[in-house]
Amino acid sequence: MKHRIITISREFGSGGRTIGREAAAKLGIPCYDHELIEKIAEESGFAKEYIKERGEYTPGGWLASAFSDRDFNGHSNQDDLWAAQRRVILSLAEKESCVIVGRCADYILKDQADCLTVFIHSDMEKRAERIVQQYGERADSPVKRLKDKDKRRAAYYQFYTDMKWGIAQNYHIALNSGKLGIDTCVELITRLY
Amino acid sequence: MKHRIITISREFGSGGRTIGREAAAKLGIPCYDHELIEKIAEESGFAKEYIKERGEYTPGGWLASAFSDRDFNGHSNQDDLWAAQRRVILSLAEKESCVIVGRCADYILKDQADCLTVFIHSDMEKRAERIVQQYGERADSPVKRLKDKDKRRAAYYQFYTDMKWGIAQNYHIALNSGKLGIDTCVELITRLY
Repeated sequence: MKHRIITISREFGSGGRTIGREAAAKLGIPCYDHELIEKIAEESGFAKEYIKERGEYTPGGWLASAFSDRDFNGHSNQDDLWAAQRRVILSLAEKESCVIVGRCADYILKDQADCLTVFIHSDMEKRAERIVQQYGERADSPVKRLKDKDKRRAAYYQFYTDMKWGIAQNYHIALNSGKLGIDTCVELITRLY
Repeated sequence: MKHRIITISREFGSGGRTIGREAAAKLGIPCYDHELIEKIAEESGFAKEYIKERGEYTPGGWLASAFSDRDFNGHSNQDDLWAAQRRVILSLAEKESCVIVGRCADYILKDQADCLTVFIHSDMEKRAERIVQQYGERADSPVKRLKDKDKRRAAYYQFYTDMKWGIAQNYHIALNSGKLGIDTCVELITRLY
C-alpha cells in the first residue's frame, strides 16, 4: 500500500529541516531527518550486517572514504551506509506517511511511493545569517562553509543518483525560504499535501 | 514607485502562459506575454528607432541572426529586439502591477521591482500531450519539438542574462504543473502575491 510521503531536499542553512518538522507536525505525521535516518540505519542491523561483512567502519570525510578507501570491488563504507539508509527510507515509506529530509529520499522513493518532492533554498546572505545563529561561528566564514556544504551535497547527490541536485525540473515544488519565509513554505507544503 | 510584479518563466507546453493569465485575472492585474511584449516593442517606437538606425530588419531564426548577422560592432537585430523588449518590460513594471510571461523578465526586473519570480515546468509526457492539443501535430514528434524548444529557450536566456535557465535557486517558486495541476499552480501563486 502506498503512503503519502513528502521529501525535502534543501540547501544547508535554508531552514529545510525546520520546514520539514513543522509541516510534519501540522499534518500529524512523523518527520525523519538525516540524523535520525543514520541512527536507524546504524542501530537497525541493516548497517550492522553490511559492516560486519565488510570489516571495520572507518569514520572520516566522505570524500576520503568515497574515493580512497574503496576495496577491491570498488566498494566503500560510504556505499554501505548509503545502502543501509536507502533500505531504511524504503521501509519507512512502506510503513507510514511521513516527511523525510535529505538523504536523496526523493530519488530513492520516486517510483515507490506517492511522493511530493520539495526543494528548499535561500539567498547566500540569509543562509549565512541562519547558520551562524543556529550553529555558531567557526574558523571559516559562513559563506565559505555554505559553498563548501553545497558542493559536498551536490556531489553526494550526483554520485548516488546520477542526477543533478537543485535543478527545478526535478522537484514538484521548489521554494526560496528566505524570500517567502519559513511559515509560508510550511503553509504551502501542507496545503499541497 | 515599486509595483508588485509576477514573472513567469516556463518550459514550453507546461501551461505557463495559461497560469500567468489566470493568476492575473484572479488578481485583477494585466498579463503581458511574449507576443504582447514583442508587439508593443515593435509598435512603440522603441524598436522602430533602433531598427531605423541600423537598417533593415531581417526576420529569420534567432540562431542565424544571433551568430551570423552581427554587424561590425557585434550587434544583431536580435539584440535590437532584446533591447527594445527590455525597455518595454521596465516601463510596464514602472507603470503598474502585472504578470509578465517569459522574455527574461525575471532577470530584467530583479532589482527594479518587487518581483515574485516563478518557474513552471512539467514532465515531458504531459508537455507533449499539451502541445499537440494546443498547437496540433507537426512534422517532428512532440518530444523532439519540446527538446528543441527547451534548448533554444535555455540558450536565449543564458546568452542575454549569463545565468542558467531552470535552476531552482534562481526562482522564488518553481512548480511542476503536470503533477500539481494548472489550477493549483494558479492558486499557490495568487496566495503568495
